Amino acid sequence: MAVPTLDFWFEFASTYSYPAAMRIAPLAKVAGVTVHWHPFMLGPIFKAQGWTTSPFNLYPPKGRNMWRDLERICGTLQLPFVRPKLFPQNTLLAARVALVGLAEGWGEDYCRAIYRVEFGEDRNVEETETITEVLTKLGQDAGTVLTRAQSDEIKSQLRANTEEAQRLDIFGSPTFVTTSGELFWGNDRLDAALDWAKH
Amino acid sequence: MAVPTLDFWFEFASTYSYPAAMRIAPLAKVAGVTVHWHPFMLGPIFKAQGWTTSPFNLYPPKGRNMWRDLERICGTLQLPFVRPKLFPQNTLLAARVALVGLAEGWGEDYCRAIYRVEFGEDRNVEETETITEVLTKLGQDAGTVLTRAQSDEIKSQLRANTEEAQRLDIFGSPTFVTTSGELFWGNDRLDAALDWAKH
Repeated sequence: MAVPTLDFWFEFASTYSYPAAMRIAPLAKVAGVTVHWHPFMLGPIFKAQGWTTSPFNLYPPKGRNMWRDLERICGTLQLPFVRPKLFPQNTLLAARVALVGLAEGWGEDYCRAIYRVEFGEDRNVEETETITEVLTKLGQDAGTVLTRAQSDEIKSQLRANTEEAQRLDIFGSPTFVTTSGELFWGNDRLDAALDWAKH
Repeated sequence: MAVPTLDFWFEFASTYSYPAAMRIAPLAKVAGVTVHWHPFMLGPIFKAQGWTTSPFNLYPPKGRNMWRDLERICGTLQLPFVRPKLFPQNTLLAARVALVGLAEGWGEDYCRAIYRVEFGEDRNVEETETITEVLTKLGQDAGTVLTRAQSDEIKSQLRANTEEAQRLDIFGSPTFVTTSGELFWGNDRLDAALDWAKH
C-alpha cells in the first residue's frame, strides 16, 4: 500500500497556523504520513466572505480570546510567543519565497522560521529585510531566492494555489485535506486529520 | 482547598455545544472539577457582531465544514447525529426550561436530552410539544414546568445570564470560564479548560 499523504494548506498571516506548522512534521512522522505543504493567500478568500481584514480584528471579543488562547497553546508546546504589533501581515512575498523553498528542499525549515519570527519574536515578515535574514540563516543566497520568488512562474503558482484552495472549499488556515477529500480546519484538528489520512 | 469549579456557558442552538454537553460531566468527574451550567442566548451577542443568523449560515464553506466535522466528532464519540432540517433553532423556551430544571436538580439531564433530540434526532426544539415530550420522559410535570419557565423571574434570569455572558466577553458557545477568569471557547477546548480549572 502507498504511504498515506496529507495536504497542509497554510497562510503565513494565520495565527493558529504557527503551532500547526511547528507540530505537523514530528506528528506526521509518528503517524507514518507524508505531508505536502501548500502556501496560499487567505485575502481573496476572506474578501469573498465579505471580510477586508482578519475576523479576529473584525470581532474584538473573538480576537481577544484568540490571542490569549494562542499564548496558552504556545505555553503548553513551549513555543516562543510574542503578540505581533502588526496583525495581520501581508505575506505575499513570504509565500512566494516558500514556493521556491518547497521546490528546492529547504521550504519546510523556511516556513517554520517565518512563523517563528512572526509570532515568536514580533518581527514584520512583510519586510524583505526580515525574509532576507531568515533565508541567510538557512544558508540560502537571499538575492537569488528573492529574484526567483518574484518570477512570473512563482507568482502564477501562488495564484493557482489560492484558486485550488477555494476550489477545495478552504475558508481558513491551517487546513488539512486527505487524499479522499476530507477537510479538517484548525490546529486543533491536526491529530484527527492525520488519523483520517491513514484510513 | 475548595473543589475547583468551571462555568459552562451554552446556547441550545449551538452545534458544537452538543458534544460538549455530552462530554463535560464524565470528564469533570475524572478531573475532580464541579461544573456550573449557564444557559444563555447567542442571538443578542451575534447581533452585536452584525450577524442576523448563525455564522455557519452566513459563510457557506464554513458551514459545510462544520456539519461534516460535527458528524465526524459524533462518530468518534458514538453520539447519534442527524443534521437538523431547521438551523439555527430559536431556543428561548428551551433555555428558560433549563433554568427551571437547573434550580430543581434535573437540569443537566434535561439539557443533554434537548441537545440529543435536536442534533441526534432532527427534532425541532422550538416547539412546546418537543419540550413537553422531553420533560415527560424525565418524569417532570410538563405543564407545571412550562408555566414556571414563562414566569417573570425565569425570563429575567435568562436575560441576566445573557448580559453576564456579554460582560464576560463570551462570543460563542460552548464557552468555559474558570474562577480565575480564564475563558475557553469551543468543544475542543474542554479538556484544556478542565486542566486550567485545577490550577
